[in-house]
Amino acid sequence: MRATLIHGPGDVRVEQVPDPVLHRPTDAVVRVVATCVCGSDLWGYRGVRPPREPQRIGHEFVGVVEEVGADVQRVRVGDFVVAPFSISDGTCAHCRNGVHTSCAQGAWWGSPDHEGIASDAAQGEYVRVPLADGTLVVTPEHPDAALLPHVLTLTDVLGTGHHAALSAGVHAGSSVAVVGDGAVGLCGIIAARRLGAERIVAMSRNPTRQALARRFGATDVVAERGDEGAAAVVDLLGGVGPDGVLECVGTRESMAQALATVRPGGRVGFVGVPAGGPELPVQTMFSTNKGVVGGVAPVRGYIEGLLPDVWAGAIEPGLVFDRTFALDDIADAYRAMDERTCTKALVLP
Amino acid sequence: MRATLIHGPGDVRVEQVPDPVLHRPTDAVVRVVATCVCGSDLWGYRGVRPPREPQRIGHEFVGVVEEVGADVQRVRVGDFVVAPFSISDGTCAHCRNGVHTSCAQGAWWGSPDHEGIASDAAQGEYVRVPLADGTLVVTPEHPDAALLPHVLTLTDVLGTGHHAALSAGVHAGSSVAVVGDGAVGLCGIIAARRLGAERIVAMSRNPTRQALARRFGATDVVAERGDEGAAAVVDLLGGVGPDGVLECVGTRESMAQALATVRPGGRVGFVGVPAGGPELPVQTMFSTNKGVVGGVAPVRGYIEGLLPDVWAGAIEPGLVFDRTFALDDIADAYRAMDERTCTKALVLP
Repeated sequence: MRATLIHGPGDVRVEQVPDPVLHRPTDAVVRVVATCVCGSDLWGYRGVRPPREPQRIGHEFVGVVEEVGADVQRVRVGDFVVAPFSISDGTCAHCRNGVHTSCAQGAWWGSPDHEGIASDAAQGEYVRVPLADGTLVVTPEHPDAALLPHVLTLTDVLGTGHHAALSAGVHAGSSVAVVGDGAVGLCGIIAARRLGAERIVAMSRNPTRQALARRFGATDVVAERGDEGAAAVVDLLGGVGPDGVLECVGTRESMAQALATVRPGGRVGFVGVPAGGPELPVQTMFSTNKGVVGGVAPVRGYIEGLLPDVWAGAIEPGLVFDRTFALDDIADAYRAMDERTCTKALVLP
Repeated sequence: MRATLIHGPGDVRVEQVPDPVLHRPTDAVVRVVATCVCGSDLWGYRGVRPPREPQRIGHEFVGVVEEVGADVQRVRVGDFVVAPFSISDGTCAHCRNGVHTSCAQGAWWGSPDHEGIASDAAQGEYVRVPLADGTLVVTPEHPDAALLPHVLTLTDVLGTGHHAALSAGVHAGSSVAVVGDGAVGLCGIIAARRLGAERIVAMSRNPTRQALARRFGATDVVAERGDEGAAAVVDLLGGVGPDGVLECVGTRESMAQALATVRPGGRVGFVGVPAGGPELPVQTMFSTNKGVVGGVAPVRGYIEGLLPDVWAGAIEPGLVFDRTFALDDIADAYRAMDERTCTKALVLP
């Protein structure tokens, strides 16, 4: 089959790799119907975290089950499934606590599991899915082409935005600011609105993304950054910062922005992968009671809760996909996202 | 009147100072009935944060209102009042959000207020109380001698322990570990139990404090520290760390202990004044979804909620006071606390 490998900075290639086969009785093999490129895939592509050797890449996919192992119970051949960005058994204490990303048997697409067995990655034609009963969520039916992008966001960005909102303590009546206008930040707006936030300030300088932010539920947009940006948000909210800030970038600047913007006693919900950022300023957090909660989003636990709204069209997170590429052209997808001519690239094998 | 000044490391003295007078129409003057020494007073005493010049000290007191300004409405001459460790107006947006420690007009005992006017501190005979209607809480009656120590904890340590527990997200059924067996940590145990925690592990090596921890509601005690301590807590809880950890010390080691002990997806509620600690490890927090929430406790907002249980004897936080000193002997009180021969020193003017 064909699958994407990253060879080094700026160098992703679609190559022939072995077809996946069932390796354990808890495995399934899934034919990928749609995958995409994540902002975090760009860390390797940009050389921030280059791979030491050519490596399979991609961690978001939906598809159809082709084959299941003898011990797989919940997932059947022919099912349409959503695969979250981490592999989890669904039964260990951490999964039961809703922290599937800390699963005792957990693993990451494209990386070796706890026994050193390599997993496939998402940007390819087929994927061997370990712990299929725990990892996969079956959809009510096969989605049509119009629904497909929305469903695909359940694998990562919608659940990650939701995690940011929950981590920031967003509830009915909250005031919220969102740092980051990428796919995760935009989905954070959807999530905040869905949780009942009353004021949602999107921090964005990009007119297209500002428009999408408003469509998703942002009540206000602030283009300024830094202290000016924080002051603009505070002004909009009548002199006090928002109850919660969703930090959806992962840089030094974005975390500083979030902490500067949130009100005393408020919470930063952070889901941006920390990239060379500083440690958190504990003295400032102490004196202002600004909390920091979040991390790598356990999206597996959110899929069933978010799926009905996606399926019914009540939310349209798939609008974050503004370009579609064939798998063979995935290098163009990476380039477009790297150059920010594309918010999020959908990829069809 | 007599009041305590700290002159430098190891040097606290009771001296004659001017009697307080009403300075603004929102002031009251309170005769101190009981005060105490706080663990955080020791930072100056130990030279970690020495005063630049002789400075009034103490921030916990209860007493009787002697005089009120023309604009004081809620507090009357003769009332017995609890004074939290920070001054707040009770009306600004931050106070309404429950973050009285960030009050727009707020100030600290012994420090200049937002207009540069000095405040009295607690370890003396009388105190001018700015913003008396906002700052003070009137008790139902004058407490008797037996109730006095319990009521005094409402000024700081009980509310601070409560803040740690709330910040850690403690609720009915939670599992909790408490780092720090000082007065705040012990009050954190009371608070966690009061909030319905099912398992409460006290981390302490001191037999007397271990016994008090158990009396306050700790279900388990762990004497080990560091990785061994974290492992012992995890073992006690069946293989997974506690849902919440109360960090009640404020050192590098105590925060590391808290983060190492809490389960993935859990929260550290921190209230220990950060003393030379490192910044928080954002990458570890990200990968494990361990949140850090808390800060300088807005105890003013907790007093009304905690007072009924104190008044009824349902909780006995005053047991943290294990020695009583006359004001003139306050240097002995500091020495005893510094040498850890005393958990918390009650001081009677």
